[in-house]
Amino acid sequence: MRPSGRNLDEMRVVSIETGVMRHAEGSCLIKMGNTHVLCTASVEDRTPPFLKNTGLGWVTAEYGMLPRATNKRNRREAATGKQGGRTIEIQRLIGRSLRAGIDRSALGERQITVDCDVIQADGGTRCASITGGWVALELAIRTLMKSGAIATNPIVGNVAAVSCGLYAGQPVLDLDYDEDSAAGVDGNFILLDDGRMIEVQMSGEGSVFSRTDMDAMLALAAKGVDELVAAQKAAL
Amino acid sequence: MRPSGRNLDEMRVVSIETGVMRHAEGSCLIKMGNTHVLCTASVEDRTPPFLKNTGLGWVTAEYGMLPRATNKRNRREAATGKQGGRTIEIQRLIGRSLRAGIDRSALGERQITVDCDVIQADGGTRCASITGGWVALELAIRTLMKSGAIATNPIVGNVAAVSCGLYAGQPVLDLDYDEDSAAGVDGNFILLDDGRMIEVQMSGEGSVFSRTDMDAMLALAAKGVDELVAAQKAAL
Amino acid sequence: MRPSGRNLDEMRVVSIETGVMRHAEGSCLIKMGNTHVLCTASVEDRTPPFLKNTGLGWVTAEYGMLPRATNKRNRREAATGKQGGRTIEIQRLIGRSLRAGIDRSALGERQITVDCDVIQADGGTRCASITGGWVALELAIRTLMKSGAIATNPIVGNVAAVSCGLYAGQPVLDLDYDEDSAAGVDGNFILLDDGRMIEVQMSGEGSVFSRTDMDAMLALAAKGVDELVAAQKAAL
Amino acid sequence: MRPSGRNLDEMRVVSIETGVMRHAEGSCLIKMGNTHVLCTASVEDRTPPFLKNTGLGWVTAEYGMLPRATNKRNRREAATGKQGGRTIEIQRLIGRSLRAGIDRSALGERQITVDCDVIQADGGTRCASITGGWVALELAIRTLMKSGAIATNPIVGNVAAVSCGLYAGQPVLDLDYDEDSAAGVDGNFILLDDGRMIEVQMSGEGSVFSRTDMDAMLALAAKGVDELVAAQKAAL
Amino acid sequence: MRPSGRNLDEMRVVSIETGVMRHAEGSCLIKMGNTHVLCTASVEDRTPPFLKNTGLGWVTAEYGMLPRATNKRNRREAATGKQGGRTIEIQRLIGRSLRAGIDRSALGERQITVDCDVIQADGGTRCASITGGWVALELAIRTLMKSGAIATNPIVGNVAAVSCGLYAGQPVLDLDYDEDSAAGVDGNFILLDDGRMIEVQMSGEGSVFSRTDMDAMLALAAKGVDELVAAQKAAL
Amino acid sequence: MRPSGRNLDEMRVVSIETGVMRHAEGSCLIKMGNTHVLCTASVEDRTPPFLKNTGLGWVTAEYGMLPRATNKRNRREAATGKQGGRTIEIQRLIGRSLRAGIDRSALGERQITVDCDVIQADGGTRCASITGGWVALELAIRTLMKSGAIATNPIVGNVAAVSCGLYAGQPVLDLDYDEDSAAGVDGNFILLDDGRMIEVQMSGEGSVFSRTDMDAMLALAAKGVDELVAAQKAAL
Repeated sequence: MRPSGRNLDEMRVVSIETGVMRHAEGSCLIKMGNTHVLCTASVEDRTPPFLKNTGLGWVTAEYGMLPRATNKRNRREAATGKQGGRTIEIQRLIGRSLRAGIDRSALGERQITVDCDVIQADGGTRCASITGGWVALELAIRTLMKSGAIATNPIVGNVAAVSCGLYAGQPVLDLDYDEDSAAGVDGNFILLDDGRMIEVQMSGEGSVFSRTDMDAMLALAAKGVDELVAAQKAAL
Repeated sequence: MRPSGRNLDEMRVVSIETGVMRHAEGSCLIKMGNTHVLCTASVEDRTPPFLKNTGLGWVTAEYGMLPRATNKRNRREAATGKQGGRTIEIQRLIGRSLRAGIDRSALGERQITVDCDVIQADGGTRCASITGGWVALELAIRTLMKSGAIATNPIVGNVAAVSCGLYAGQPVLDLDYDEDSAAGVDGNFILLDDGRMIEVQMSGEGSVFSRTDMDAMLALAAKGVDELVAAQKAAL
Repeated sequence: MRPSGRNLDEMRVVSIETGVMRHAEGSCLIKMGNTHVLCTASVEDRTPPFLKNTGLGWVTAEYGMLPRATNKRNRREAATGKQGGRTIEIQRLIGRSLRAGIDRSALGERQITVDCDVIQADGGTRCASITGGWVALELAIRTLMKSGAIATNPIVGNVAAVSCGLYAGQPVLDLDYDEDSAAGVDGNFILLDDGRMIEVQMSGEGSVFSRTDMDAMLALAAKGVDELVAAQKAAL
Repeated sequence: MRPSGRNLDEMRVVSIETGVMRHAEGSCLIKMGNTHVLCTASVEDRTPPFLKNTGLGWVTAEYGMLPRATNKRNRREAATGKQGGRTIEIQRLIGRSLRAGIDRSALGERQITVDCDVIQADGGTRCASITGGWVALELAIRTLMKSGAIATNPIVGNVAAVSCGLYAGQPVLDLDYDEDSAAGVDGNFILLDDGRMIEVQMSGEGSVFSRTDMDAMLALAAKGVDELVAAQKAAL
Repeated sequence: MRPSGRNLDEMRVVSIETGVMRHAEGSCLIKMGNTHVLCTASVEDRTPPFLKNTGLGWVTAEYGMLPRATNKRNRREAATGKQGGRTIEIQRLIGRSLRAGIDRSALGERQITVDCDVIQADGGTRCASITGGWVALELAIRTLMKSGAIATNPIVGNVAAVSCGLYAGQPVLDLDYDEDSAAGVDGNFILLDDGRMIEVQMSGEGSVFSRTDMDAMLALAAKGVDELVAAQKAAL
Repeated sequence: MRPSGRNLDEMRVVSIETGVMRHAEGSCLIKMGNTHVLCTASVEDRTPPFLKNTGLGWVTAEYGMLPRATNKRNRREAATGKQGGRTIEIQRLIGRSLRAGIDRSALGERQITVDCDVIQADGGTRCASITGGWVALELAIRTLMKSGAIATNPIVGNVAAVSCGLYAGQPVLDLDYDEDSAAGVDGNFILLDDGRMIEVQMSGEGSVFSRTDMDAMLALAAKGVDELVAAQKAAL
């Protein structure tokens, strides 16, 4: 029934290649099918002004998409002079999600910026960014610990994200672009590796959903995140 | 236990005054305790370019906050030269939510812009904007129907929104600013009047939540939205 | 002869309601007929850089208009990415005018920002902003004096403003939108309560005016400002 | 008593050199003492959208200042990314003033843009821009009439402008920078050549003025404009 | 003598992998040592306005760099709100260079946008962008010819670019970052495959160069471009 | 053969008038035929942040063009909100070129900003800006030396620039607008007074050039720069 022939609860093939960027403290290239996102984590020894002298660190994220990541070329945001509403919404979500996996007090007064750049897009780029961004972030933290800059491990647990939705009336896991653009309802589920939830966003543009729909999607999401966490751990 | 002395499942006093703006096709001033939002709906006989010759209409929203709506003066976004990430995120949510209550085919090729301007803020401004914005929107649609511009009623059902969260470990309904700034988890629940869900956003910045927490918040949200829909119907 | 049926030297009904904003050090809602402006005064314990270590304070103003304050919806300046020329011109005028009523040395090194937000517009919004802005400013100064932050009263005298113009060849007081858009000549008169002038702007776009016209408008303005100062004092 | 040694009612030496720009339909370099402004008038066979099919033309103005026109280098507005409030205020004034000297119906559906670029500044740049801008504009109109593009002369009368102020308590004509920066009150007077007024702006930042002061300044302005109109006519 | 141990006239290892992007009409990933640039060519059936109805096509380029392509993270241009001067200079050079290899009349009224995104930087990114951009462009043209959209082959000749400079007083070929940042003089040489020159830029910031230096660099450039053209042809 | 009737190796008449701006530390008006550029050098006792505590000074440049410097009015960059790509490219070139004539260590920690504003354009504005900019810069340095602020003369040698190109197949010196807009190849040659090269840019948009063409242009450039240096020395 799915355009890709996948089962309702079947993820796309996931691959996570680490250490792909020479300069970054942590990096990976995550592929979820034809969605490819390059994630880097950059460490700076300063925090945003609002955290000065609090002893707390910060994790933030930026998101971008190459102009021809999609079927039709998009205008380059650097050329239009501002990041679009969708970009801003996504990068705020990535930042919030990753922060939930980190003890900012153990991190200390430093900032880690996770850049997620979509090289190729086929649906689910924000979830792939979070899952891959986590790997880059954890690698950067290992670098900091190896160097002795951090004494206590600030990692609370792995953060991973997957999308679910109602496609042709059925709950499906890990929507690709064909499904995403036709789905009545879709949601993003960001979870810790122990199954607790960090953020849940379910939205039915031009449509609504019931409690039963929601429960079905939550069950799929839990299965998907388990597989993603396994892939993260294998890569690390 | 709540700073305001309210019960866990107790909303703030809600008031919705309609017809407060002389020029707009629909308007109201919604107050949820000390959060006051002025909502207007403006009709234009044109749609965005991507809907040309589709027969479909559009509902969009813009959100703003007066500089001194809050305890500390915020810089005016018109002066800084751009809308902040939070503003953009909120107005996109308001637009998506309101569209779910409208049959865009019955609306026909016209656009209704709902402006939500926060006069005074005490938490929950995005939910108040959706609930009040719906009233302005429904009034504008009545204006269009009275004038004969629309033949079939495009209203699918009332849209209303409320926030819930975990405050001091307890699920609470309709957070005010004191609760919001201290809550570990908070969520926005946008529902149709029949209880079906349009959008659910639950987020635990620096925290996580369990399925049990989520169920408790969903139950509170259903109660809150029932009361808000009653207030909308009374005002209309 | 006037569209509203008013006499040539008759003001619209003026009302000034104080204390309408919970957070601001001073606030009022001024109504001149259907023109409604919300004014707040916000105190900060710092001055602009050019006044550092001079012992002098600063009063500045910002002006905005809700998108549907007018008959046709205007684009939100925060969304267009800049304040228009008219907005900038008006807020500079408000700031200059209010500063003339304050002894900046007695104010000391602090800044008061007066925000004037037009909720509904029917002509004369800049004059209403000055007259109402003064009330918000004076209330903020009373707050500062009560708290002991200021020892000497910095108030030189009440500042109020009114528009006059030539409508259908006749000098008229306090133009509403119908008159304003048809007037050959119109002027804004900002006076101190003792009748001395702070700023006079008379302009005849596509028209000119004589010394006799000017004298007639000055006489009307003096009458109008007297009434406005009385309304300010009653409100305070 | 004046820093320059001039009499109270004495203008600076005025010179207007026409035809200084090879490409423009009209141009001049106006010098009022050490204030030098290059004015060009550019004709386009289109009007702004709001005048389409009205038969009316438009005259607009833009104002700029070279970075080192002043004693201290100013940042280039093209580099800062926007025109400052002062620039916008001035160019709107120049445009309004020049339009008063033109019958826009006789001009027909075309736009003339008058660019006033301050090469060197020593006070009174906006008045010099109006006086010189008029000369450029009249030359452009002569070009249009010679070519037969315009049949009826659209010139209503010469437009010229001068500043007056209270310096050291005395009314003075044509303030230079030393006077302007010290003056308690200063005003700009834009007149037609028959003495009727187009725009009058009197402002006392941190000061006020009486009716007597105003009358004295008006008398000086009338004298100054007479001399400027004579200089315009000599140059043309 | 060179930090990398290369001979003076030795290029870095070049690799060009084609077809790396699923959606673009032409694409490649070019690596010159540790400098990696992803190049895509996107075809649109419209030209810029200035070419309407001329029968001529257009080739343009945009250049970007991922924030962590370099040793220290750079601010994302989309976030700063504008492309920097260096970016603008580079993308104009890429566009001009590629156009020299295309007969725009045979291309017909369509536009090809070549996006060059630097994934990793180690000096010479503008030259790598031109050399790789050419491959993407030629692939897009082949796509157009295969589909029958273009009848006559518009390719004039391969375009390739290499940098040369004076490092430690010696002329060297294909500078990497270590050399580039220390070089007194460096130049970019963009040539056609027959050895004729499209653009030559030699610059000695804080230094100068003689005719002899220039001749030495030109000889190195000719050798380098020969090798790059061979790599292009092998990849295509 | 040339539109102007000049010989192939004949420059336009050059004139350099110094001291034209009252406020600048150095200034000149350079005319190369109908291309007129006003150049000022402004000294500030601070360097850009990246030079703090290095003992080195900085020379930078900004370039602008009056809206009606050209045959058709260009939009004012201050009004469009950003400097165009061409402006940015040119001012970076001017800055780099002028720095090559200065020993930044002898200059000490101060910045000189050279503003080049094109009053009238007829081709070759960037070269005129460099040649005139040098004169303004040298005058500013003399001012600094006379005042004792600089002890050692930081001047390495005069910097001057000229354009050459292939017009109708022939190498020509100092292209005017008619030639520039028709030339297949054109180049800018920035030299020191001893003939050594600072920057060479040769570009054939839609065309290519051979080594023989290049040699011919270099010979012309050397002749041109000799004449320009003579004019600079005469003016100084």
